Amino acid sequence: MTVTLSELHAALGGVLHGDPNTRILRIATLAAADHEAISFVAHARYAAQIESTRAGVLIVAPHLLQTAQRRAACIEVDDPYGYFARLTQWWRARQEADEADEAPRIHPTASIHPTASVADDAWVGPYAVIEAAAVIQSGARIGAHGVVERRAQIGVASRLAPRVLVGRDCRLGARCILHGGVVIGADGFGFAPSGGVWVKIEQLGAVRIGDDVEIGANSCVDRGALEDTVIEDGVKLDNLIQIGHNVHIGQHTALAGCVGVAGSAKIGAHCTVGGGAVVLGHLTLADHVHISAASVVMRSILQPGQYSGVFPIDDNKSWEKNAATLRQLHRLRERIQALEHRS
Amino acid sequence: MTVTLSELHAALGGVLHGDPNTRILRIATLAAADHEAISFVAHARYAAQIESTRAGVLIVAPHLLQTAQRRAACIEVDDPYGYFARLTQWWRARQEADEADEAPRIHPTASIHPTASVADDAWVGPYAVIEAAAVIQSGARIGAHGVVERRAQIGVASRLAPRVLVGRDCRLGARCILHGGVVIGADGFGFAPSGGVWVKIEQLGAVRIGDDVEIGANSCVDRGALEDTVIEDGVKLDNLIQIGHNVHIGQHTALAGCVGVAGSAKIGAHCTVGGGAVVLGHLTLADHVHISAASVVMRSILQPGQYSGVFPIDDNKSWEKNAATLRQLHRLRERIQALEHRS
Amino acid sequence: MTVTLSELHAALGGVLHGDPNTRILRIATLAAADHEAISFVAHARYAAQIESTRAGVLIVAPHLLQTAQRRAACIEVDDPYGYFARLTQWWRARQEADEADEAPRIHPTASIHPTASVADDAWVGPYAVIEAAAVIQSGARIGAHGVVERRAQIGVASRLAPRVLVGRDCRLGARCILHGGVVIGADGFGFAPSGGVWVKIEQLGAVRIGDDVEIGANSCVDRGALEDTVIEDGVKLDNLIQIGHNVHIGQHTALAGCVGVAGSAKIGAHCTVGGGAVVLGHLTLADHVHISAASVVMRSILQPGQYSGVFPIDDNKSWEKNAATLRQLHRLRERIQALEHRS
Repeated sequence: MTVTLSELHAALGGVLHGDPNTRILRIATLAAADHEAISFVAHARYAAQIESTRAGVLIVAPHLLQTAQRRAACIEVDDPYGYFARLTQWWRARQEADEADEAPRIHPTASIHPTASVADDAWVGPYAVIEAAAVIQSGARIGAHGVVERRAQIGVASRLAPRVLVGRDCRLGARCILHGGVVIGADGFGFAPSGGVWVKIEQLGAVRIGDDVEIGANSCVDRGALEDTVIEDGVKLDNLIQIGHNVHIGQHTALAGCVGVAGSAKIGAHCTVGGGAVVLGHLTLADHVHISAASVVMRSILQPGQYSGVFPIDDNKSWEKNAATLRQLHRLRERIQALEHRS
Repeated sequence: MTVTLSELHAALGGVLHGDPNTRILRIATLAAADHEAISFVAHARYAAQIESTRAGVLIVAPHLLQTAQRRAACIEVDDPYGYFARLTQWWRARQEADEADEAPRIHPTASIHPTASVADDAWVGPYAVIEAAAVIQSGARIGAHGVVERRAQIGVASRLAPRVLVGRDCRLGARCILHGGVVIGADGFGFAPSGGVWVKIEQLGAVRIGDDVEIGANSCVDRGALEDTVIEDGVKLDNLIQIGHNVHIGQHTALAGCVGVAGSAKIGAHCTVGGGAVVLGHLTLADHVHISAASVVMRSILQPGQYSGVFPIDDNKSWEKNAATLRQLHRLRERIQALEHRS
Repeated sequence: MTVTLSELHAALGGVLHGDPNTRILRIATLAAADHEAISFVAHARYAAQIESTRAGVLIVAPHLLQTAQRRAACIEVDDPYGYFARLTQWWRARQEADEADEAPRIHPTASIHPTASVADDAWVGPYAVIEAAAVIQSGARIGAHGVVERRAQIGVASRLAPRVLVGRDCRLGARCILHGGVVIGADGFGFAPSGGVWVKIEQLGAVRIGDDVEIGANSCVDRGALEDTVIEDGVKLDNLIQIGHNVHIGQHTALAGCVGVAGSAKIGAHCTVGGGAVVLGHLTLADHVHISAASVVMRSILQPGQYSGVFPIDDNKSWEKNAATLRQLHRLRERIQALEHRS
């Protein structure tokens, strides 16, 4: 695919410096770019790389323009990373147009229950399954503040990748992306112990997913026991994430890969949870709480901030010694107390 | 869906107090219930909520009957939570009858190998795959002690959700539920190191799953290397769980989401393993061992009890200081010893 | 299936001691073997079991031959475990021939985009999806050093299990095995924060997978943001593994179940990562680095060796006391320093 700098600029804006006829064949990192590539300087710490990049076009913030102009044509914008994000969307949309895929939006092998409601503009891949009374909303709906353009992913339609499963009664908002193997609306894990066996509690709730939600490959969001599991607008879930029944995740919160959230946890808005972290059930994270990767949230966190809890990795021998000592830590504390009293 | 209290009572028993014609439209928590809802008081700690609930019907233990009767019609039972569980099953069965789904039990898109044996009463969803010589037993078989009614899930049939995969030679007992994306009988992870490369050890065993087993979405149970991987009766596995080859899980053990069990581990009966925990290979957990969420079992545990091992979460600054110190813990212990000898 | 010792020996080599007409019906462990089984002594620590095994045939190293010959016919080889691995491959290939499965190599329900290129010798299971411009190479290509026989899995063809998804533009080398539910080429997790919402960064790279790679059930390998995610030759990934965008995994590295590798991590060759471990993004592991199960790699590791970081499991009461003390560890260290200065 080839575009000119002027086409790109016309579509995405910014202040153009340099030859508008510059041909662009690819988007690349500063290090990998050649003269037919457009690249970007997202952070000041990459500024030094401007000196050595071979990119034909650079997206830069105003304070780096002068340096960058010596190397390449430039697009000057306040938020180069955000501009880059929109560039990738525009680029992908053009690729898709080029691919001129004849495939219908709803693949003929998708299994859609007659009582399900799937918007005309939704894209549903091969072997996706949409069960009874499930709803996939149209992307044409305008958001609360009319900011469709900014929040929109490519186009305005929801995209269900091949082999997605949306269970009965579950609802998806506008412009959602569900990647391959996602399971929405499997039963929550609920059993009553009774005489040594587990009696199943049928899960009578569903899953409600807001607008602009993206869910990664093979992730699962369970249906609620009595009420619904809720994923609010703009939430981003990476791959292989487990969301238990009756969980509530607030707007624009992002969870990295392999996170597990146990039943009835309530995670606020604008939170981030690092990869492999575990959030136990029936607790609350306030808005703007950030959990480091692989940490385990065992209690509610009501103050915004960054929280961590990971055993530091070490060479195996050192770890063995420290871990063995850790099992006596409380006793060590008593010995320190004894020493303090003694002296 | 609407039922009367008398219909419900006729089906599920208990001692009825109040108007048998009370109409019930939904099941709800104490907090969410309105006058057309039935709710339950599972634990004494919820007793205070009786005063404020608007539920039309309450399921309560005898000692709470007097209080509850002032608010609502009541069903008095010894085990309100177990009664609630059975109520959800009865409710869901009626919903399904109402839905009057015309879909055949075995969906026409299910791919069933001609040599597989699938019971007539099994429910197999779209795009499920059942490979050669696999067996899905009928639910009509009566359990050892004839306690079908109590252990039965809805009806008596196994239910394979859309996109379940049951590999060649694997066997499923009666009344099992496999949720979307489950993979039974992928190859165990076995390789012989040889000159710097891994030589595959073909996995010649299969998976044997007992009666009344439920397995959550996208969970995996690998086939054994030479013998079978075994999941005994009544085991409950949540979503995104990995069970390695040759693992043996005893009756009525429950594993929460994202648990990993490595090859040849033997977990006893009536155990529980919390979400995100890891059980290493070739070790044994006795019956009635309970592992806390996110803990790592690195050695056999032969005494019943609750076991834990998680780094406590803290604000990031505190964690950084404590984690750094932890890497010198063994040395700290020596310094305490030195102080003790000195004084 | 029945084979004779002479058939087996003719196919796999080694030095034969005993009756070549010995009939073999199964492969079994030393403990489970009967007189119609062939078994193997992989490690010296199993030598004592030779005395009690009932195996009809034993695969042994030269120094155990004398003992073994008193119990059974023997195949004497330098590497009994590697021989066993090749035996399982030979055995499985014969089983498959016996099964005489009429199913076509590419199952008619596999959804293969017209622009994808799938080798004639590849095996593609039901409901697998291969998207536009994806490539599944032929296994007929000979490896760099001509060592096909040793590295080959059964036959030389790639095997895509049912319900595998290979995304657009992704490439698979020769002789790969992808188990059920694998997702290759879902979007990497990339978003630019902008005014409190996440703006999607379209993932324009793909996934490149080398030869002889095996990927376990429901594992995911994300496509790169601008460049490709790369899995080199001979890598083995277990089930439910997450590989983020732009990750690079070197030759013959093996990752056990439930491992998560965050974006842009670079893992060297001949590494192993234990089950449930987490490797954070943008860091480097040198060749021959071994990470213990459930450890969290938070910094680059540039020296070969074994590394660990796991909170030791303990009875819950002890853990609670030690974990509570751990949150004051830095303060304890200061108290020790104070004591040292005092005395």
